Amino acid sequence: MSSTVGQVIKCKAAVAWEAGKPLVIEEVEVAPPQAMEVRVKILFTSLCHTDVYFWEAKGQTPVFPRILGHEAAGIVESVGEGVTDLQPGDHVLPVFTGECKECDHCKSEESNMCSLLRINPDRGVMIGDGKARFSINGKPIYHFLGTSTFSEYTVVHVGCLAKINPLAPLETVCVLSCGISTGFGATVNVAKPKKGSSVAVFGLGAVGLAAAEGARVSGASRIIGVDLNSDRFEQAKKFGVTEFVNPKDHDRPVQEVIAEMTGGGVDRSVECTGNINAMISAFECVHDGWGVAVLVGVPHNDDVFKTSPVNFLSERTLKGTFYGNYKPRSDIPGVVEKYMNKEMELEKFITHEVPFSEINKAFDLMLRGEGLRCLIRMEH
Amino acid sequence: MSSTVGQVIKCKAAVAWEAGKPLVIEEVEVAPPQAMEVRVKILFTSLCHTDVYFWEAKGQTPVFPRILGHEAAGIVESVGEGVTDLQPGDHVLPVFTGECKECDHCKSEESNMCSLLRINPDRGVMIGDGKARFSINGKPIYHFLGTSTFSEYTVVHVGCLAKINPLAPLETVCVLSCGISTGFGATVNVAKPKKGSSVAVFGLGAVGLAAAEGARVSGASRIIGVDLNSDRFEQAKKFGVTEFVNPKDHDRPVQEVIAEMTGGGVDRSVECTGNINAMISAFECVHDGWGVAVLVGVPHNDDVFKTSPVNFLSERTLKGTFYGNYKPRSDIPGVVEKYMNKEMELEKFITHEVPFSEINKAFDLMLRGEGLRCLIRMEH
Ligand SMILES: NC(=O)c1ccc[n+]([C@@H]2O[C@H](COP(=O)([O-])OP(=O)(O)OC[C@H]3O[C@@H](n4cnc5c(N)ncnc54)[C@H](O)[C@@H]3O)[C@@H](O)[C@H]2O)c1
Ligand SMILES: NC(=O)c1ccc[n+]([C@@H]2O[C@H](COP(=O)([O-])OP(=O)(O)OC[C@H]3O[C@@H](n4cnc5c(N)ncnc54)[C@H](O)[C@@H]3O)[C@@H](O)[C@H]2O)c1
Ligand SMILES: [Zn+2]
Ligand SMILES: [Zn+2]
Repeated sequence: MSSTVGQVIKCKAAVAWEAGKPLVIEEVEVAPPQAMEVRVKILFTSLCHTDVYFWEAKGQTPVFPRILGHEAAGIVESVGEGVTDLQPGDHVLPVFTGECKECDHCKSEESNMCSLLRINPDRGVMIGDGKARFSINGKPIYHFLGTSTFSEYTVVHVGCLAKINPLAPLETVCVLSCGISTGFGATVNVAKPKKGSSVAVFGLGAVGLAAAEGARVSGASRIIGVDLNSDRFEQAKKFGVTEFVNPKDHDRPVQEVIAEMTGGGVDRSVECTGNINAMISAFECVHDGWGVAVLVGVPHNDDVFKTSPVNFLSERTLKGTFYGNYKPRSDIPGVVEKYMNKEMELEKFITHEVPFSEINKAFDLMLRGEGLRCLIRMEH
Repeated sequence: MSSTVGQVIKCKAAVAWEAGKPLVIEEVEVAPPQAMEVRVKILFTSLCHTDVYFWEAKGQTPVFPRILGHEAAGIVESVGEGVTDLQPGDHVLPVFTGECKECDHCKSEESNMCSLLRINPDRGVMIGDGKARFSINGKPIYHFLGTSTFSEYTVVHVGCLAKINPLAPLETVCVLSCGISTGFGATVNVAKPKKGSSVAVFGLGAVGLAAAEGARVSGASRIIGVDLNSDRFEQAKKFGVTEFVNPKDHDRPVQEVIAEMTGGGVDRSVECTGNINAMISAFECVHDGWGVAVLVGVPHNDDVFKTSPVNFLSERTLKGTFYGNYKPRSDIPGVVEKYMNKEMELEKFITHEVPFSEINKAFDLMLRGEGLRCLIRMEH
């Protein structure tokens, strides 16, 4: 057992002191986990748009200084009172949304929107006592999404940790902790394309490519990638995308183009852009009678989804999903197994890698729109 | 075998000569059925809003003179070339939409929107040869929805006839030919509430009460009826509706009232009004995480469905249905069996009855909003 149990740990963390300013690697103090909390040694983390979005903090109530990061993999260092599911040494993925296993949502087979541990980007403290576990010279450094993985050690609620196969390579499966599971699950858990069916994927970023990977794994025979940026098309071929449509190349709505390509519409579509027009097109491009469209992208607050109600009456279905409908603790270990059994590929999502000391390079890459995921290797 | 086979039959029919003018009982000639057609002796028919809508023909390209009627039950008199599924004497329900069994929709498990025989209210002729089978002195009298059941004899495409149990009482099961199957199927086939769940039904006309009957049969523990007309509430109790909300009694959106009544929203909702505001409320009143809303009502052409996309992202589902997702030939015989096995009740939908000669009284009742279904008894 580690000698750090019950002690404050001093370690390195990348602190965001101010909105939009480069992170600074600082020595922070990480308090021991309290009741229902777990302290995790992070080995790998990666950068997702959501980190950048809350780091930029445009139009938000800013919560700074803060430790960002929510896509990661690590090993349990110690557990707080009442934690029975995990013990030191367990391999875990922290997840930005949790599973208390007791609320109506956790008890429902259909929902993963836990009432207790649902994502809350405005909260910078632990839910148990309303305090931060990070500090520098006694001054609190705030949490992010309950995960704060840009730190060598972090404290996470037990409900936000998926215990995974200890044989799984952490530097690869860490990407399952957010975007890749979101896109993959949107297809396999929500859109559920049948073998041989056609699937349109709107937006070919990491989430959309994971949705395409889900369609490939489901045996879809046509995977139509839609993006405003044609540069995305070359890379998308590796993810099973068979055809490409850039809405800018057409002078009529892309849903009409897709309907024509497919004799009336695709069987399934998955929207991974966050753009309201793409959401509407993704719905209207599915076939009447049986088409299902799934929204994944996070819209602007004042966006309005508009369509003719007749599009529903002609038996189209519209759904949305959050984290691919996966329950973090119950389902993510199984997704890791899918990777271990070679039923899904993950390596192709990791296009860059930097040591923790160069974490700001990962931000630069994302701001320039380069690559999919940049792996950040902690240097314990 | 009837001596009328292959002959023109002279019989009585209620002809709509002009939009909005009382029907006139005339002697019409009914030609023998052509290839893939069936001539049916109608015994019972009932009046549905759709008949009234196309009789009023407001803002439509009128198709007159015409024989309306599409909710009915009868017996096969003779069959045309190529008809192998039916023979004289079979008991049938004509249905306004068909099932060719060969198109993509008929082959899909999910759709009932047959490409060949899908509802087309503008067509007044048979699809085989583009001609009417009804005439008076050689002048064609047009068909309606491929059924034209306000006639002692009618000619229907074989794909629009459900062959039912000959023991079923035709004066009761005739209402399964349209609205009641639509509402019932919307709940049991599309919304699919689980035992013990809560269901909101918007609109307590015949279709909405059939949706409520579907919820009752599914074991819903709370059935919340929503209507602008509180007079509908007393009757609705017979259909298992347990609570009532009149949006006019509240100064905030009815979806908020329902969310408060149910701790966050109903598990399922079914909209049976045709009103766009009710459609939006029906969607927004379902619980996040697992709620499913189903649209049944036929909207105006220029209506727009508007909602925040976040309502989808928080894992709500919106679907629409046409004829309760039943395939007329494959599924309706089974619905008749449900009635025969006392798994569903039908008598309570039939609130009035008139002889065929007084068919205009049925129109008066509907225009005054009295009752649910008026049975029209043919007088052969
Ligand atoms: N629901 C969830 O749980 C969840 C989780 C993670 C991410 N997300 C969301 O998923 C979305 C995608 O994430 P990402 O990391 O892949 O983003 P990304 O920015 O890397 O990719 C988005 C792609 O969409 C394209 N695009 C934008 N507007 C378009 C339009 N109108 N038509 C076609 N393509 C268009 C862009 O060119 C880009 O290639 C974001 O909105 C993100 O917030 C949702
Ligand atoms: N999808 C299909 O296959 C199909 C088949 C048959 C009928 N329909 C449609 O179903 C709908 C209902 O048919 P019906 O025969 O029961 O009609 P109906 O007129 O008897 O009943 C409709 C009820 O809705 C109520 N209503 C209207 N606006 C409302 C609102 N904003 N909020 C709450 N209640 C409201 C009315 O007061 C009325 O009681 C119609 O639109 C009809 O065209 C659809
Ligand atoms: Zn929970
Ligand atoms: Zn068909």
